Amino acid sequence: MVGIFSRDEINIPEQIFFPLFSLQHRGQESCGLAYRKKGRLVAYKDLGMVSTVLGRYLSESRPSRIGIGHVRYCNQGGNRIENAQPILVNCNKGEIALAHNGSISNTGELKAELFEEGSIFHSTTDAELLLHLLSRSREKDFFSALTATLRRIQGAFSLVMIWNETLIGIRDSLGFRPLNYGTQNGRTVFASETCALDIMQIQDYRAVEPGEMIVAGPEGVRSIRFADAGRKSQCVFELIYFARPDSRVFDESVHLARKRMGAALARMDREAGLEGDLVLPVPDSGNSAALGYAEEAGLPFDLGLTRNHYTGRSFIMPSNNQRELTVRMKIHPVRDSIAGKRVILVDDSLVRGTTSRILVKLVKEAGAREVHLRLSSPEIRWPCFFGIDIPTRQELISNRMDPREIARHIGADSVGFLGMDGLRSCLPRPRDYCYACFDGDYPCPVPFKGESA
Amino acid sequence: MVGIFSRDEINIPEQIFFPLFSLQHRGQESCGLAYRKKGRLVAYKDLGMVSTVLGRYLSESRPSRIGIGHVRYCNQGGNRIENAQPILVNCNKGEIALAHNGSISNTGELKAELFEEGSIFHSTTDAELLLHLLSRSREKDFFSALTATLRRIQGAFSLVMIWNETLIGIRDSLGFRPLNYGTQNGRTVFASETCALDIMQIQDYRAVEPGEMIVAGPEGVRSIRFADAGRKSQCVFELIYFARPDSRVFDESVHLARKRMGAALARMDREAGLEGDLVLPVPDSGNSAALGYAEEAGLPFDLGLTRNHYTGRSFIMPSNNQRELTVRMKIHPVRDSIAGKRVILVDDSLVRGTTSRILVKLVKEAGAREVHLRLSSPEIRWPCFFGIDIPTRQELISNRMDPREIARHIGADSVGFLGMDGLRSCLPRPRDYCYACFDGDYPCPVPFKGESA
Amino acid sequence: MVGIFSRDEINIPEQIFFPLFSLQHRGQESCGLAYRKKGRLVAYKDLGMVSTVLGRYLSESRPSRIGIGHVRYCNQGGNRIENAQPILVNCNKGEIALAHNGSISNTGELKAELFEEGSIFHSTTDAELLLHLLSRSREKDFFSALTATLRRIQGAFSLVMIWNETLIGIRDSLGFRPLNYGTQNGRTVFASETCALDIMQIQDYRAVEPGEMIVAGPEGVRSIRFADAGRKSQCVFELIYFARPDSRVFDESVHLARKRMGAALARMDREAGLEGDLVLPVPDSGNSAALGYAEEAGLPFDLGLTRNHYTGRSFIMPSNNQRELTVRMKIHPVRDSIAGKRVILVDDSLVRGTTSRILVKLVKEAGAREVHLRLSSPEIRWPCFFGIDIPTRQELISNRMDPREIARHIGADSVGFLGMDGLRSCLPRPRDYCYACFDGDYPCPVPFKGESA
Amino acid sequence: MVGIFSRDEINIPEQIFFPLFSLQHRGQESCGLAYRKKGRLVAYKDLGMVSTVLGRYLSESRPSRIGIGHVRYCNQGGNRIENAQPILVNCNKGEIALAHNGSISNTGELKAELFEEGSIFHSTTDAELLLHLLSRSREKDFFSALTATLRRIQGAFSLVMIWNETLIGIRDSLGFRPLNYGTQNGRTVFASETCALDIMQIQDYRAVEPGEMIVAGPEGVRSIRFADAGRKSQCVFELIYFARPDSRVFDESVHLARKRMGAALARMDREAGLEGDLVLPVPDSGNSAALGYAEEAGLPFDLGLTRNHYTGRSFIMPSNNQRELTVRMKIHPVRDSIAGKRVILVDDSLVRGTTSRILVKLVKEAGAREVHLRLSSPEIRWPCFFGIDIPTRQELISNRMDPREIARHIGADSVGFLGMDGLRSCLPRPRDYCYACFDGDYPCPVPFKGESA
Repeated sequence: MVGIFSRDEINIPEQIFFPLFSLQHRGQESCGLAYRKKGRLVAYKDLGMVSTVLGRYLSESRPSRIGIGHVRYCNQGGNRIENAQPILVNCNKGEIALAHNGSISNTGELKAELFEEGSIFHSTTDAELLLHLLSRSREKDFFSALTATLRRIQGAFSLVMIWNETLIGIRDSLGFRPLNYGTQNGRTVFASETCALDIMQIQDYRAVEPGEMIVAGPEGVRSIRFADAGRKSQCVFELIYFARPDSRVFDESVHLARKRMGAALARMDREAGLEGDLVLPVPDSGNSAALGYAEEAGLPFDLGLTRNHYTGRSFIMPSNNQRELTVRMKIHPVRDSIAGKRVILVDDSLVRGTTSRILVKLVKEAGAREVHLRLSSPEIRWPCFFGIDIPTRQELISNRMDPREIARHIGADSVGFLGMDGLRSCLPRPRDYCYACFDGDYPCPVPFKGESA
Repeated sequence: MVGIFSRDEINIPEQIFFPLFSLQHRGQESCGLAYRKKGRLVAYKDLGMVSTVLGRYLSESRPSRIGIGHVRYCNQGGNRIENAQPILVNCNKGEIALAHNGSISNTGELKAELFEEGSIFHSTTDAELLLHLLSRSREKDFFSALTATLRRIQGAFSLVMIWNETLIGIRDSLGFRPLNYGTQNGRTVFASETCALDIMQIQDYRAVEPGEMIVAGPEGVRSIRFADAGRKSQCVFELIYFARPDSRVFDESVHLARKRMGAALARMDREAGLEGDLVLPVPDSGNSAALGYAEEAGLPFDLGLTRNHYTGRSFIMPSNNQRELTVRMKIHPVRDSIAGKRVILVDDSLVRGTTSRILVKLVKEAGAREVHLRLSSPEIRWPCFFGIDIPTRQELISNRMDPREIARHIGADSVGFLGMDGLRSCLPRPRDYCYACFDGDYPCPVPFKGESA
Repeated sequence: MVGIFSRDEINIPEQIFFPLFSLQHRGQESCGLAYRKKGRLVAYKDLGMVSTVLGRYLSESRPSRIGIGHVRYCNQGGNRIENAQPILVNCNKGEIALAHNGSISNTGELKAELFEEGSIFHSTTDAELLLHLLSRSREKDFFSALTATLRRIQGAFSLVMIWNETLIGIRDSLGFRPLNYGTQNGRTVFASETCALDIMQIQDYRAVEPGEMIVAGPEGVRSIRFADAGRKSQCVFELIYFARPDSRVFDESVHLARKRMGAALARMDREAGLEGDLVLPVPDSGNSAALGYAEEAGLPFDLGLTRNHYTGRSFIMPSNNQRELTVRMKIHPVRDSIAGKRVILVDDSLVRGTTSRILVKLVKEAGAREVHLRLSSPEIRWPCFFGIDIPTRQELISNRMDPREIARHIGADSVGFLGMDGLRSCLPRPRDYCYACFDGDYPCPVPFKGESA
Repeated sequence: MVGIFSRDEINIPEQIFFPLFSLQHRGQESCGLAYRKKGRLVAYKDLGMVSTVLGRYLSESRPSRIGIGHVRYCNQGGNRIENAQPILVNCNKGEIALAHNGSISNTGELKAELFEEGSIFHSTTDAELLLHLLSRSREKDFFSALTATLRRIQGAFSLVMIWNETLIGIRDSLGFRPLNYGTQNGRTVFASETCALDIMQIQDYRAVEPGEMIVAGPEGVRSIRFADAGRKSQCVFELIYFARPDSRVFDESVHLARKRMGAALARMDREAGLEGDLVLPVPDSGNSAALGYAEEAGLPFDLGLTRNHYTGRSFIMPSNNQRELTVRMKIHPVRDSIAGKRVILVDDSLVRGTTSRILVKLVKEAGAREVHLRLSSPEIRWPCFFGIDIPTRQELISNRMDPREIARHIGADSVGFLGMDGLRSCLPRPRDYCYACFDGDYPCPVPFKGESA
């Protein structure tokens, strides 16, 4: 998610393209941009990747001052073009374009109320729901209406919005999802991760605070609190898995946090007396943690699994049932690195165990004497209602097996998870995070517990 | 516009595709279909032609009983994907898909009211506006709500709609746009023109009456009057230009009506003493009228302008300013047919005169001694508010020049239009038509007179 | 097939595109162009249509003086990219690009000889074979080598060729296939049909003579005879079916020749006492002949079968076995024109009878009282070895049934063919044509008689 | 390059696809496959990548026993479809499909002779030249003709060939390019690198020997020596840069060879007294060498430059002059890893220095205190005539500057190359390699020295 307001007129499609491209990992289902073109808001969006969908508008080059972009991650609602964002509407508050990252947890009651009052829904997005509430607000002033709306919704919402000639960035009061705010050369920029600011060469940035709304427009920039600062519930899974290692999220370096998690794993194994010869990361998800593990354990680190850079979306396997072949096309073991070794294989997390089983098989085929899979996160046992796509409880392998059973199931000599205390010890402010996917302790009411939507 | 309800489960995307394809001439901007698939409504739509956009769903083959399809003609609102139809929404009345042909003339006041009440608009279509009104209606019963809604809107609307498991076809009380209703083998079908019924091999059909709503569902078919039968204002331009010659619209044969218009032109010219050697149609718009002219005048008819069937949408001229080359790629004169002749060149109507100028030039280059352009319609002078895209009054050549000036402008030896009386004489029930684009006499209030939207 | 030499530098891809586009009907399998770009010959070719394959090079705009273009008609060798033309080679004679229309009839012995001597074949085209012969010729001078080569090959060959900076147009000594030569504004142009010259607005042209080679280069234009003028064997099927009606081929107007054929059919029927009410052409193949028939017979002519212009190559029927549906998507009867009439349905020729059967069915469904199918050519009974794709003798309906049986087979009330004498009577120089597909009298030796290749 | 012969019928397009895909890094210009389909050889090839060009044939599934595949690397001849391989011809030796990796160095004289004798060239490939020689050979027996042909050509050629029902793999007598031969379950397989055999799960393989020809057909497999075993000149650049790290080429582990090169660099720096804090690889080209460096130097290794996996070929920069932006889209520094450090940045080689300059800038922007660029190969100063694309001597930065000047030019604090002795010390059999790009000492005559083709 990206938003730009510029004092001077710029080529918005191009200026949105590059940072949005660097956020592609946050969603590959659909993408879009909305911007003000000759006095009207327009939106371009489609199923597919940024380079394909938005690449063709790069040279559109209509001078403009304001635009937002979105990549959609499929955590609900299905892969439908109607759900692509930004959502662009015209209403009594003016023309509004909205992009949303996260997941609102009290949609059920809000939607029932809007249905009753005659609202019609084109999509199943939380963004459209929010726009209905905003348009129907009887508050005279736009920002009063917006604040009233934000107070009615619960759960995870980082938002970027265009309202007429104003750009607005918003982060929910618990701060589930990241949102960063930077300025440079008369530009005000919002981005989910700082890697998007890096590509724009913006060095002056900070996290938008939970409960903060930042408004940029022709009259300048101002910060508004729409909710009191209380407890934070930042998504720890952003640090473990979701964000890019070269980003900072929640004002933390993702790469260093992961290295600490790897080091914590190594301490765990040292106490347990595990002896390995070699630390290998699962590329690229285990890279940082494996480095941290090797450093702490004093063991050799090797890039013994290489990754093929030519696998992309352009090729669809003729038969669905070829997951193993798909993995083999992408990940290749280096036999001469692995053969005869007791390998510590490090990844970030374990969900269903399907891919891990294939990877362990590849490493064994390459001649490893032992394979010990280590995950730099605790066991995932609960669904997420705040924007991470986690399978049903039944599908989560840690709800069905203990580590010893998992090891047997995937063919590893052992499987080890970073414990909750270990994870907390890697975070400078451990109380500021949500760990609900590990411990089921949700920081706000959720629709139903025990099963994902 | 097409709608199908089938007693038995059929492959709806395929069954919609063929009749919709045969209506492609009614709109080339975008197209779409909506149907009930596994208990939910889904919609597929995009900018482009039926064969491209919907061809890929032909083999989807989910058994279904109900579906509608739409081709969009750009008469307003711009070429945006958001305006593609059917519009599919979820609201307190259930899931609804709606396709609209025509143009509602009191949108201004209705939209103001909806804005005031907090409705948000994703598109600029009349179809979305109608759905807002329907959803907000406080009538308990769906059909009461629908009837109340239809009574609030004015202007041209032929509609096909899916509501849950029910298919509904509706024609406005003045009957501006055609809509036909046919049945066969347990199927109930709606289509804008009968050519779409022909390709489905449905022989049992009639026009939906102005003010009639036909409802087909699991319980059978019923006809409801939502407005009293009063004066009709059927669009005479459908007969002159818009509909396909092999169709019947308003229960009239389009081909025969056009032949009568051509014959009326010939009588006009005979009285005026015009002498020609040869009647040529502008392909294919002047075909039927030219045949009628030649027959009445006793002059030879020839296909002296041939049409290249390989010109399609796949090729975009590198430079915009090549209209003449585009015409030359498509229309080719047969020199040996034309050389030395006094040619009566027959077309349906004259709007800006740009293409006619090129055609007259081609015919002269092919050696014609004289070229007399004859139009089987009166001079177009007024905008249409009911669904035909007519340029601004300033652009209409007949608001700027009389026939003699037009002839000089386009290089013809003379230009002649069918007069209003002549036109009326070709129609069995001349009072049942709207002639507003010729005489400015609009059958219902229009937003403003003298200029199109 | 098109060739251009220009005194001044022009944008050759664009200048080839438009005339080649107007020859699309001569071949839809593949197409290509070759031209001299920055001192080297380059070729662009692919399976597909001119607008798709060559449209993308329109704006390449490298100044050049010389280029050729080709559309390939699949009469042999299969739909393979390797067979797309022009063929571009480098050899001891220099860089050569060659495009060929027709079919060489003594390929067997020539190919055997070349094999023996070590030539390697990338394609199965006659053009490649000719280039092998040319390169291997021991004649010192290029034109001596070319003449020697042309004398070794038999059958049908119209050729356009680039050799270094020279453009050459060639027509075989019997003149099977058409080739026209025009000049204007310092340009020398070759084209298979004059419609391609028309779109270039070239009025000064003539047929290349059988046995003539025209050479255009920086030193000017010269005509060379490589064979004595003897008997001509021009393909009468070009006039009947293949060429566009707005073209002249063999210095004859195609449209007028077809009208005469239709008139001859009408005289035949008058003598036989056939009574009809209405003449309908099969669009567009029967257009000209039907006009000639109606004029001669004094019967009304109507465009009672309309053609859908949106059918193109973009849509592939999901199932192969849907020929009837494909015809129904393309051809639509006008019920009000046809119902109750005794219809004379005119087409150019009858091959397998498959499409005619469907058309007769459509006309009967539209209410025709009688349908009499008339073909403006004799019965096709023999294969063509000179470039027209005719099915095997067994597939030709006229080898299996007499007209009465055919009528029964296709559901018509009668079927009538133009006789050989009738056909000859329509041609000013009837002895200058090849009628082998009708009478099996081949004007030069053919590989084997009784079956096509 | 891949070749398969199977005792049983298999789906050749699919069986070629996967190993060829794993060799994509060896050539991205064009690709193709040829196989025996229903008794005839067919070829599919196009400009573009394996997944796009060949992915569509995966399900063709015609049972077949024999096929070859090729990816083309643009070292000469230009990016033309005509040069895509395999080359498929028909000649007096039968149907032959040929794929070639390498570069023949005596093409000039051979081509002159073939021109003289009348051969025509469709492409500029060495493969076509070889086929001309083969077809023209007067040797009666095919293998005698093939051997005679191979003895006439000099330079680098690894070949896979289909001749009728026989698969042949060949490696030139100096062994420039790799070629491996494996067998399993009745299949005989050739592949340029062993990573392609890994994905086929073939464990039983060896390098084809220099001067060896292996023939697999219905009668079994046999090895033929067409040249005496003499000096080897294997391309050392395959180990340094070209091959994949998980491959073995020339029976050496690429990954381990590169680690040794990195370690040798570290020893060099230790002797020179360089002090660094952190070793970073340029991803992924410097990965293995950086690991070897860090291990030897006892310095921390970090993945401080991350690589974006979404950059692909689908997006073309609107302006050419955006190399820096392209690098920024692909490579991202991790500020928290780099800031304040003295960075040893390791890459494989330095050609023009353009990308290195941008990378050094990125690392400095991320806060590095010092950046020392280390290359795990000597200075490249000479063109390659055996298949590696190296720019002209003038473009090679090491022909214009010494390391100190280069450091200044690219903004690094120092630049260091692995010396020739250092490189040799990393290879078990250093005499078996060609180092000509470093020292200009070519192992066989080359067309001209001092400038590339």
